[in-house]
Amino acid sequence: MEGKVEYLWEEVRELSLGTTVDRLHSPPTPLQFLRDFVSQNKPCIISNAISHWPALSLWPNSSYLPAALSSSIVFLHLTPDGHADALVPHPSLPSLCFVSAHVQPTPFPQALDLIRRPPSHLVAYLQQQNDCFRTEYGELESDCDGHIPWASEALGCLPEAVNLWIGNHRSQTSFHKDHYENLYAVVSGEKHFLLLPPTDFHRMYIKEYPAARYSYSQEKGEFRLELEEPERYVPWSSVDPCPATGNLKQENLKFPLYFNGPKPFEVTVKAGEILYLPSMWFHHVSQSPGEDGCTIAVNYWYDMQFDIKYAYFNFLQSLPCRSINDLTTPESGCEQDLGPHASPNHLNSRFSVNAENCDRDAASGRPRHRNFCGLERTAMRYLKMMATLEIL
Amino acid sequence: MEGKVEYLWEEVRELSLGTTVDRLHSPPTPLQFLRDFVSQNKPCIISNAISHWPALSLWPNSSYLPAALSSSIVFLHLTPDGHADALVPHPSLPSLCFVSAHVQPTPFPQALDLIRRPPSHLVAYLQQQNDCFRTEYGELESDCDGHIPWASEALGCLPEAVNLWIGNHRSQTSFHKDHYENLYAVVSGEKHFLLLPPTDFHRMYIKEYPAARYSYSQEKGEFRLELEEPERYVPWSSVDPCPATGNLKQENLKFPLYFNGPKPFEVTVKAGEILYLPSMWFHHVSQSPGEDGCTIAVNYWYDMQFDIKYAYFNFLQSLPCRSINDLTTPESGCEQDLGPHASPNHLNSRFSVNAENCDRDAASGRPRHRNFCGLERTAMRYLKMMATLEIL
Repeated sequence: MEGKVEYLWEEVRELSLGTTVDRLHSPPTPLQFLRDFVSQNKPCIISNAISHWPALSLWPNSSYLPAALSSSIVFLHLTPDGHADALVPHPSLPSLCFVSAHVQPTPFPQALDLIRRPPSHLVAYLQQQNDCFRTEYGELESDCDGHIPWASEALGCLPEAVNLWIGNHRSQTSFHKDHYENLYAVVSGEKHFLLLPPTDFHRMYIKEYPAARYSYSQEKGEFRLELEEPERYVPWSSVDPCPATGNLKQENLKFPLYFNGPKPFEVTVKAGEILYLPSMWFHHVSQSPGEDGCTIAVNYWYDMQFDIKYAYFNFLQSLPCRSINDLTTPESGCEQDLGPHASPNHLNSRFSVNAENCDRDAASGRPRHRNFCGLERTAMRYLKMMATLEIL
Repeated sequence: MEGKVEYLWEEVRELSLGTTVDRLHSPPTPLQFLRDFVSQNKPCIISNAISHWPALSLWPNSSYLPAALSSSIVFLHLTPDGHADALVPHPSLPSLCFVSAHVQPTPFPQALDLIRRPPSHLVAYLQQQNDCFRTEYGELESDCDGHIPWASEALGCLPEAVNLWIGNHRSQTSFHKDHYENLYAVVSGEKHFLLLPPTDFHRMYIKEYPAARYSYSQEKGEFRLELEEPERYVPWSSVDPCPATGNLKQENLKFPLYFNGPKPFEVTVKAGEILYLPSMWFHHVSQSPGEDGCTIAVNYWYDMQFDIKYAYFNFLQSLPCRSINDLTTPESGCEQDLGPHASPNHLNSRFSVNAENCDRDAASGRPRHRNFCGLERTAMRYLKMMATLEIL
């Protein structure tokens, strides 16, 4: 298998992806976008697609946002080091755990201040992924387009969620994938993406980790790491693409398929640009602030097609890879992608099958638009399916 | 592997293909065609898309075509039983061989007469696949559209080849796939397709067979089966989906993945309808004549995208399947699809790398637009690749 899957990684680059992400200097027509990128599951950067947004000039002005959102309470994500939805050691566990941020309802001006002028002991990030731009940040509606017109026409629908992201250079998002076609528009600062196509699944060393949360005590100014109860496991990539210098050799040995395989696509998206991040692509995100001290972006999640590409991905994912199995538990290494099965057609119904298992945002109680694997694992039809899976 | 690949067959149907082929009652917009069918590698039938073609009323008139093509010499394919590009026993071989038709340059009126009023000892079929409609049958140009406008706009190109097919009820085409997006328009009579998606590769039991040709002696009224020299091998599906009643049980035992797996999609395309047959789909074709005694169709081959779907297919194809390996030789069972690699972008260049290995039409000497695996097998880069392939 290993020799063959390695050939797949090479071939998809040779035939279709190349070595760098395509750049368009003006918005594509819907047909061009669909034919050259969505249909091929191929990313691109589009310049000059949001030049008409008032946000581009308004938001970097440091007094505009605090004034526009002076009375808004927003859900601020706090971590000790900028790594939320990431793997960290847990004192009472032999392995790592998957930790989510402490989510603190905060007046917007105060939240922004914590991002722009960070104290040393915490990192704040506005990164709710529950359609927050159209709900929490409704006051900013007229500063951006409500959707990306050529993408909506190409995809035949409006976005299912629009999210606002405000962070600083310390916030990172670890490797993961989303079940959405993603149009990611940067308004201020820069976002740095590392991208791997879905064909490279085995290079991500996805394993199930126990879920934990940071709990932040404002009084003590300290974070506590708490395992979720009841126990819950989250499948997550074990790879840190930028390990500390001292760990580099060790990480190379642990994750050779990642470190010795084709380089991930590196993309910097600047203010005024859009990244088309195709569904199911693995992405790691970091950021550089603009002159206003923060990075601001708006992303549009469109429903993806659960078509032959997705079926192929699921098949690929079901195949064990020897070097990965050393790392993973027998239950987790060969799972099908269960994400969208409950109902591929509507976001809400993705969360309706078994609500108590749904991954919810701690503060808002709303379903989160990421990591919804927990939910569907319980669906009866997959028990049947799992039983039929054979090991090669 | 078997359990997993079987799940793939089921999943692609459950998520995307359903159990029957979609039917559109008017031509789709280019966007709809691209989004709902091409991008998803999903077939459809389109009614009322060629109602404006003069061919629909002219061609079934038994005197029109012989008059229009009264001075044309065409390449008529002759077989004893209607099975060209098919597997037949060879007296001096332990296994079957892959046989092509005898190709006889024939005045068109005489060719049509042989199709409409077949003698008992031969079956005649006009089925050149070398863009014949725009070359040999140039006189008929104004009877049809030169391309399918909404498909050309969706795919961003004009057809690479347009072919005319005139046959009777005895002619069949055995299971195979093409590296093209295919728009298949029936003008008279009906075409019956059995379709399997590319995910079902292992169900086709593809094996390499020695190439042979029928040689027809007009004097004796007899066919002779001649192995090609130099020896050449053609990878071809071993499955006959409609075996003689007496052979059914035996064929079931030999090809259980085909006979016990999901039913192929059955599609009848009537006069006036178009089938969109997606690239890489396996298809078996038979036909029923119209009142004029023959089935007439025109098909448009558009270049396909060699994208992530194609890379996934090649990966799937490289995986051995135990029950197939019993049938196949070690060299043939696990090959990558080498078809389009030489140059995915232009038809002619597909045949330019190593011309002597190119599969050519016997009569015209032109490269045929099918079965061009022989060519690329010789390309040096694949020798390297094959050497790196490992058995699971």
